[in-house]
Amino acid sequence: MGKVTATYLVHDKKGNLDKKAEGIALGLTVGSWTDLPLLEQEQLRKHKGVVESVVELERDDEADRFLGNQRTRGLLKISYPSANFSNDIPAILTTVFGKLSLDGEIKLIDLEFDKQLESSFPGPKYGISGIREILGVHNRPLVMSIFKGVLGKDLSFFKQQLYEQSLGGVDLVKDDEILFDNPLTPFEDRIKAAKEVLQQAEDRTGEKTLYAVNLTGRTSDLRDKARRAADLGANALLFNVLSYGPDVLQELAEDKEIPLPIMAHPALSGAIGSSSLYGIGYSVLLGKLLRYAGADLVLFPSPYGSVALDRDETLNIAEALTTENIALKKSFPVPSAGIHPGLTPVLFNDFGLDSVINAGGGIHGHPDGAAGGARAFRQAVDAAVIGEDLENYAEKHPELQKALELWGGVPVT
Amino acid sequence: MGKVTATYLVHDKKGNLDKKAEGIALGLTVGSWTDLPLLEQEQLRKHKGVVESVVELERDDEADRFLGNQRTRGLLKISYPSANFSNDIPAILTTVFGKLSLDGEIKLIDLEFDKQLESSFPGPKYGISGIREILGVHNRPLVMSIFKGVLGKDLSFFKQQLYEQSLGGVDLVKDDEILFDNPLTPFEDRIKAAKEVLQQAEDRTGEKTLYAVNLTGRTSDLRDKARRAADLGANALLFNVLSYGPDVLQELAEDKEIPLPIMAHPALSGAIGSSSLYGIGYSVLLGKLLRYAGADLVLFPSPYGSVALDRDETLNIAEALTTENIALKKSFPVPSAGIHPGLTPVLFNDFGLDSVINAGGGIHGHPDGAAGGARAFRQAVDAAVIGEDLENYAEKHPELQKALELWGGVPVT
Ligand SMILES: [Mg+2]
Ligand SMILES: [Mg+2]
Repeated sequence: MGKVTATYLVHDKKGNLDKKAEGIALGLTVGSWTDLPLLEQEQLRKHKGVVESVVELERDDEADRFLGNQRTRGLLKISYPSANFSNDIPAILTTVFGKLSLDGEIKLIDLEFDKQLESSFPGPKYGISGIREILGVHNRPLVMSIFKGVLGKDLSFFKQQLYEQSLGGVDLVKDDEILFDNPLTPFEDRIKAAKEVLQQAEDRTGEKTLYAVNLTGRTSDLRDKARRAADLGANALLFNVLSYGPDVLQELAEDKEIPLPIMAHPALSGAIGSSSLYGIGYSVLLGKLLRYAGADLVLFPSPYGSVALDRDETLNIAEALTTENIALKKSFPVPSAGIHPGLTPVLFNDFGLDSVINAGGGIHGHPDGAAGGARAFRQAVDAAVIGEDLENYAEKHPELQKALELWGGVPVT
Repeated sequence: MGKVTATYLVHDKKGNLDKKAEGIALGLTVGSWTDLPLLEQEQLRKHKGVVESVVELERDDEADRFLGNQRTRGLLKISYPSANFSNDIPAILTTVFGKLSLDGEIKLIDLEFDKQLESSFPGPKYGISGIREILGVHNRPLVMSIFKGVLGKDLSFFKQQLYEQSLGGVDLVKDDEILFDNPLTPFEDRIKAAKEVLQQAEDRTGEKTLYAVNLTGRTSDLRDKARRAADLGANALLFNVLSYGPDVLQELAEDKEIPLPIMAHPALSGAIGSSSLYGIGYSVLLGKLLRYAGADLVLFPSPYGSVALDRDETLNIAEALTTENIALKKSFPVPSAGIHPGLTPVLFNDFGLDSVINAGGGIHGHPDGAAGGARAFRQAVDAAVIGEDLENYAEKHPELQKALELWGGVPVT
C-alpha cells in the first residue's frame, strides 16, 4: 500500500499535540475510529490516516503575542494511505492540506511520496543532465539572463536584446514572466525570431543558447500551443505554474509531443510560502512538487536580492530539486533576483556546480551592455569553479573588472 | 482601454509608501519611467501602471514586534492596463501578484475588473436565480448537507445516506471533497445511484434535491468527465478549484456541454488566505475570482465552527459573490463547518435569504438521524424567514426541538 506523508508545523491553541495529530489523521480520512464497531474498523483500517510522529517545539513568544495567546508549537507527521486518493497532485493536496489549510495556524512543511507513489509521477523530461547535454556544458553552473522591458516594444527590440545576451555567452535567456501574448511580440513570432537570432549568435560564438518562451493563455490551449512552439523551433518553455496549477505543468511534462525543457517561474508562490504560520513551505511548493510535476528548472528568489528568501529556505528548495532520494531526474535550481557577478562565489558556495546563475539588472546594467554583462558572469563562473579569487581573476578579465567596480564583490563567509 | 485595479495591504520596511507604490506600478509594467526619453515614454504610456491611491494606516505594534522592526502600514491601489495581459485569470494574477507576492509583507486584498475586462468572464452559468429555478425554491435560504464517512464504504451505504438526507428535505447534498475516484464508489456509479435514489425521494416528498458529485482526476480529463456526468444524469458538480486553478473552473463554466451548476470547495484556500500579512484576501480568492470564473455556489468556513473565519471576512466573501456591482450572475454563498440548526437565525441575519445553510455533523448527529437533522434545518429556516423565535417554533416541530436540546440555540446579537 502506497502512502503520502505530510509534516505540519502547528501553533496550537489547545496544547495537546497528540490529540491534534490524531484528530487530523482521522478527520482527513475515516472521520472517527475508537467509537466504531470492530467490524467497521477492520473494513476501514486500510483507509485510516496514521500519526507517524509528534514533536513539541520551544514556544515562540513573538508568535504568541502576535496571535494574542499562548500556543503549543510542534511538528506533526501524518501519513495518508494511497487507497484514499487518485495519484495526482490535486487529489494529494486536497487530502493532506485541503480543509486542513483553513484550520488555524498550520503550515505544510514537508511532503514525502513513497516509492510506489513517486513512480506515478514523471519528473523532469530533461532535468539537469538533459539540459547539460543539449547545451554541451558539463563542468560549471549555467548562466541565464532575463529580458528587460520588452513590454510595449516590438520584435526588433526583442531580437537585438536576445542577440546581445546570447553573444555574451549566457546559456539560457527567459522571457519576462509578465510578457503574455500581445500584438507587438506575438508568441509564435518570438519563437521564430529567437531561432534565427540564436543561430546567428551560435555561428559566431560556437555556443548554444536556450530561449524560454513564456507559455501563457487558457489552460486547455497550453498543450497545443507548446506543441506548436516545438514545431516552430522553440527550445525551452517558461511557465507560471502556480497561476495554473501543478497538474497542468505535469501534463505538459508528460506530453511526448512537447520535447522542450520547462522552466517553472515562482510567480504567486509568495502568497502561499511567505508566512511562518500558514501555507506551504517553499521546499515543498517550489521544490518537491515541481520536481515531481516535471519542472526542468525552477526559479526562486535568492537570499541576496531585494526580493529575497531566507538562505536556509533556498538551500532546502535546492536540496529538494536535486536530492538523490527521489528517483526522478533532478531539476536545476535557479536562485534569482538581485544577482550581479560579484555574488557568483557566494552562489557557487551555496548551490554548487548544478545550479543556474540568473540575472536581469546584473546583465543589462553592465557598462558594456548585456553582452558585457554576460561575459562578466561567465568569467565570474570560471573563477568560482577553479576556486580563484574574483579580484585576481578580474585583473585579466576586463568585463568582470567593470562589474566588480560597479557592484562590488561579495566574500564567501 | 480596460484595466484591472489591485489593492494591497503592505507592512513596509522603508516608510515611503508613495515611492513603494510607484515602484510596484512601474516594476510590474514598463520597468522604469522618469529616466526614459520622451519618445519612449509616449510609446510606453499605455502600458504603464498607475498609482490610484496610497493610504497610510495606523501602526500595528504586534505585527512590528513579530516582524522584528517598525513597519509603515498602508493600502496601495494600483491599476494595470489590459494592454499588458491576455484576459485570463492566470495572466491577471501573474501581472498583479506574480513576482510581487514574494516582495516582503504584502497582501492582495482587492481586485477590480473594469466593465470591459469583466465582460470577458463568464460568471456563473446558473447562479442563484438559476439554481432556485431548478429547485423551485424562491423564498428561503437553501439547506445543504454533506456525506459523512463514505471513504471505504460501498455504494449501498452511499445510497442509504443520500436517501435519508434527501427525504428530510435538504436542497443539496455534496460529496466529501476528499472522496476521489475509487473502486468502492466510482464516479459514474455514484451519479447513476444518486439519480435513482433522488427520484425515489422526490416521489415521496415532491421536492428536488441536487447532488454535487466530486469532479476529480487529471486536469485535461475534467471536461470530458463532466460532460459524461451530465449525460449520466448528474445534476451538480463539486470542484476543488484551488487544487487545480481558477482558469480550470472557468473552462468548465464556459463549456456549453456541461449544463450543471458548479459548487466550488475552499480546499487549500487557507494556505493563501489565512495570513494578515501575506497572500490573497478571501473576498478576492473565494469571492470575486470564483464568481468571475463561474462558480454557482462557493463554500467557505462560517464564523461559527471550530474551523472558522472572521465574521467580517465571511461577510466580505458573501458580498463579493452577490454584489450588483458585478454584471454577472450571483453565486450562492455557502457558509460551512460547525453548523447546527440553532445557528440558523444567526446565519440568516448574516447572509440573508440568498445563502445556503450547510451542515455535516449538524445533520448526521441528529437524534433522529440524517432525515431528522434535515427536517430540523428546514424548520429552523422556516422560522428564521418568518422572524419567529426558534424556541417558540420548536414547540410544534419536534425535530427542531430535539436539535435545540442537543446543540442549543444561538441568539442573534
Ligand atoms: Mg521578471
Ligand atoms: Mg468535507
